[in-house]
Amino acid sequence: MKTKVLYLGPSGSYSELAIEKFKSLLPENLELIQQESLYQMMRYLIDINNDSLFAIVPIENSIEGIVRDTQDNLSLLAQKGIQILAETQLSIEHCLISFGKQEEIKTITSHPQALAQCREFIYKKWENNITFLPALSTSNAVANLSKETPYIAAIASEHCANFYNKPVLGKHINDKENNATRFVLLSKKSPQKTINNKVSIVFSTENKPGALNKVLNIFEKYDINMSYIDSRPSRRELGEYVFYVDFAGHIEDNNIALALVEIQPFIKTVEVLSKGAICI
Amino acid sequence: MKTKVLYLGPSGSYSELAIEKFKSLLPENLELIQQESLYQMMRYLIDINNDSLFAIVPIENSIEGIVRDTQDNLSLLAQKGIQILAETQLSIEHCLISFGKQEEIKTITSHPQALAQCREFIYKKWENNITFLPALSTSNAVANLSKETPYIAAIASEHCANFYNKPVLGKHINDKENNATRFVLLSKKSPQKTINNKVSIVFSTENKPGALNKVLNIFEKYDINMSYIDSRPSRRELGEYVFYVDFAGHIEDNNIALALVEIQPFIKTVEVLSKGAICI
Repeated sequence: MKTKVLYLGPSGSYSELAIEKFKSLLPENLELIQQESLYQMMRYLIDINNDSLFAIVPIENSIEGIVRDTQDNLSLLAQKGIQILAETQLSIEHCLISFGKQEEIKTITSHPQALAQCREFIYKKWENNITFLPALSTSNAVANLSKETPYIAAIASEHCANFYNKPVLGKHINDKENNATRFVLLSKKSPQKTINNKVSIVFSTENKPGALNKVLNIFEKYDINMSYIDSRPSRRELGEYVFYVDFAGHIEDNNIALALVEIQPFIKTVEVLSKGAICI
Repeated sequence: MKTKVLYLGPSGSYSELAIEKFKSLLPENLELIQQESLYQMMRYLIDINNDSLFAIVPIENSIEGIVRDTQDNLSLLAQKGIQILAETQLSIEHCLISFGKQEEIKTITSHPQALAQCREFIYKKWENNITFLPALSTSNAVANLSKETPYIAAIASEHCANFYNKPVLGKHINDKENNATRFVLLSKKSPQKTINNKVSIVFSTENKPGALNKVLNIFEKYDINMSYIDSRPSRRELGEYVFYVDFAGHIEDNNIALALVEIQPFIKTVEVLSKGAICI
């Protein structure tokens, strides 16, 4: 059976760049399946759910803003045996893409978040003499550019401009540097131990002072270094919180295995989202 | 001097609903000043920075996805003496708004995030026989509806439909319930003690196991109950993290004042974002 890899389209999206970065972990003979939405992808994953299925999703995204949705879905997928196999980070570097020259441009088109991320750049160049044309995605904005509309410029990645064969007018136009998006590779496969693994878990505690702290004390005892912690209401019960925690290592590491046993009396629920994602 | 209140436009936005909720904390004679972007608002706040200036910003937003941007700016504003005076939560309840009947509708317009939040609803009604027209904001989508285009429907709040006097065709169309946005009221004024205050701080620690834990142990000792914790890279130094923490109470409460002194040796930097936001 051919290995299927699901990813968020449309063609030219930042998700496509992530496929390249995960290539070393994927078999050679791939079938790439573009998905229109995270919702569509999740339905596919849960319905088809087999060993030769992979999916690439943004987990911390400065454009589509779907972190929370991804996190919620990861918990659901973990219950079906689908976990994070690997993780990578992509710099978001927006370009100005147009068939026209800078002085001809009257309209700028992109996803509203991408427009917002370049607002300072746009203001400095054109002040308020510009019209914003929203697009469903950065890729859609670029795909619709033509020689007949030299007064329109799109904002998207260089990869996207190249994919659709449209001219890049300026690079690095986002107002803030270090704007990055984290992508994860989902699969039923378990990650091998490397020099750079990352365990992800989500757990809930009672709503009382120090409940979280009991858990973190155990992590400290076993020398576990958290790189990420995030809390949010559990949606099950008022005042109950779930905590998303990432830490360096692999679930087969002795200290991590012991810590995960020792925290049991202090938590209400726990779900392993990654046994040790390979960081690429 | 008239009190100025900055808020994110355009008219009919969810931010406008937040003004209503904060009304009890604002003087009667107000000048509401609509801002086009968070960027524009921050420049205004820092330039004008005086005692009779207020601003309302979304801090956890399921549409514009600008939480991170707001958080970053809060730190900067705190250094200028502008902190969170109050907080409120608004349910995001999308409506379908159109001059046409359901069977006439061929195009749905809104901010791409709002379109995504109603995808299941749209799929069930129209399957794939619908065109998506992106808009810069939910309000923009509604403002542009007309009797001449009964085949277009917009997605936005009921408040927005009423503001622009456009007919509501269906309510509660978002796929997930309990979709809420948190708004904060910023000011140079200090919050009074009430029965429901919330302190917000952001601090950084050394990048070593247990650094965060030392701080949380002190909070536990003083019976402080965290309602929110979030970590992110500090951007100053690789491997250095900053932690955003919210907990019930007021900075003048004895236990909180003592805890904030006692954590000093274990943190690198700390900024108070709210001395005790009044939760409305």
